[in-house]
Amino acid sequence: MKVLLVFAHPEPRSFNGALRDVAVAELSARGHEVQVSDLYAAGWKPAVDRADFPGLDGDRPLQPSRASKQAFLAGELTPDVTAEQEKLRWADLLILQFPLWWFTMPAILKGWVDRVFSYGFAYGVGEHSDKRWGDRYGEGTLAGKRAMLIVTAGGWPEHYSARGINGPIDDLLFPINHGILHYPGYEVLPPFVAYKVDLLGEAAFGAAASALRQRLAALETTPPIAYRQQNGGDYLVPTMELKPGLAPPTANGFALHVGAAARELG
Amino acid sequence: MKVLLVFAHPEPRSFNGALRDVAVAELSARGHEVQVSDLYAAGWKPAVDRADFPGLDGDRPLQPSRASKQAFLAGELTPDVTAEQEKLRWADLLILQFPLWWFTMPAILKGWVDRVFSYGFAYGVGEHSDKRWGDRYGEGTLAGKRAMLIVTAGGWPEHYSARGINGPIDDLLFPINHGILHYPGYEVLPPFVAYKVDLLGEAAFGAAASALRQRLAALETTPPIAYRQQNGGDYLVPTMELKPGLAPPTANGFALHVGAAARELG
Repeated sequence: MKVLLVFAHPEPRSFNGALRDVAVAELSARGHEVQVSDLYAAGWKPAVDRADFPGLDGDRPLQPSRASKQAFLAGELTPDVTAEQEKLRWADLLILQFPLWWFTMPAILKGWVDRVFSYGFAYGVGEHSDKRWGDRYGEGTLAGKRAMLIVTAGGWPEHYSARGINGPIDDLLFPINHGILHYPGYEVLPPFVAYKVDLLGEAAFGAAASALRQRLAALETTPPIAYRQQNGGDYLVPTMELKPGLAPPTANGFALHVGAAARELG
Repeated sequence: MKVLLVFAHPEPRSFNGALRDVAVAELSARGHEVQVSDLYAAGWKPAVDRADFPGLDGDRPLQPSRASKQAFLAGELTPDVTAEQEKLRWADLLILQFPLWWFTMPAILKGWVDRVFSYGFAYGVGEHSDKRWGDRYGEGTLAGKRAMLIVTAGGWPEHYSARGINGPIDDLLFPINHGILHYPGYEVLPPFVAYKVDLLGEAAFGAAASALRQRLAALETTPPIAYRQQNGGDYLVPTMELKPGLAPPTANGFALHVGAAARELG
């Protein structure tokens, strides 16, 4: 398998960096081809701005999605962005690895998404009308590929549990797993999350590394999260609401968009 | 009231920028003092890196939370960060205004949070032990103040409704409202969200502007979202799980952390 690992921690000599090395070694040992996009090492530019659209007339207001569409169609996206898009087309599996900062990804990785996931590449793909709302949520440029998060968190697993104060980790990661990864087509594997990483010593790192190796050994056989396909018949068009009766009456929120076969709803 | 509006759109001549002008004019006309942090205009640096911690020994690995703590205690945070912290201490109301990109804030604003919300200022505040898990979620440096989001989205409101494919907007914004704003102490007002902004003309802008003015006119009387206080007796220590019986049996996920008085659960 071809694997792209996008790494977003500022310090290679960190728990997160050491896990990255474990992942790369394990994937390589199993015969996978691995490329790493180390965003800090590359000095990745996080903010979408006019410099991203060299073809945009200097007097014209910047409308990011329109500018993104025009630059994509004209082949005028910047070289750092097109290089990442080529890696995404190349890879069968995308791994996003990051520390959980304020319950989501660090700014530098959000800026990778904001800039690389251009119109025409990750959104605005397919027929977009009041009959069919584009190729997205299971269809699109990256359909047929898999994606997975590797996340480190300082807090305790209990704080991210079903009744934990931070909110359940699966719900906190839904905007990424569903909104960023499933949206352009990926099947999304359950995330690998290491907790309490600021407090842990070598022994605990060994346990986390071992658990990660097991997850990576099972890549081909791990069922993805059963997110519904937008155009599979489950949603009303054009309101894109889940059709009545497709989930238990007690289910609500993000859980509605996971098919009942994969996990208990309600 | 003293108001800080943090603005995160790259183009002042945009729907979002015009709404910002409406907000500033309305707040000023009502006698409030307004400061704007325009992140793009200021060239805000988004990524947390070694340059944020000039006191850190060059050979030492960067542990962001430890470095943040040391820099905060030593008064060695960078001037751009301390200036924002001073504005936050000054303001009675914080407004974060941004376009919804990939279901959350743009990278430049995430980078404002990542850098300004330092250890000792926004987290790591108060007694932190297995008896009391710090001053957070309703307590902390910014307790007694209010915060509110102004968000523009390209999609339809139906897509962000209770059964909409993107997930309910309140759940998508929970990691920001609860995890970023309530965490360091803010009471959080319901967000103002304008939908379909890429498609709208002048008439629709007028309607959005009018709705925003009404929200801003009612700032003092709008009840905040009834997020529970961490140390108000609702959570077990140290697992920080909601105590049994404190929400309807059918409630789950983010909704558990909103008191039943404010909205129907389940």
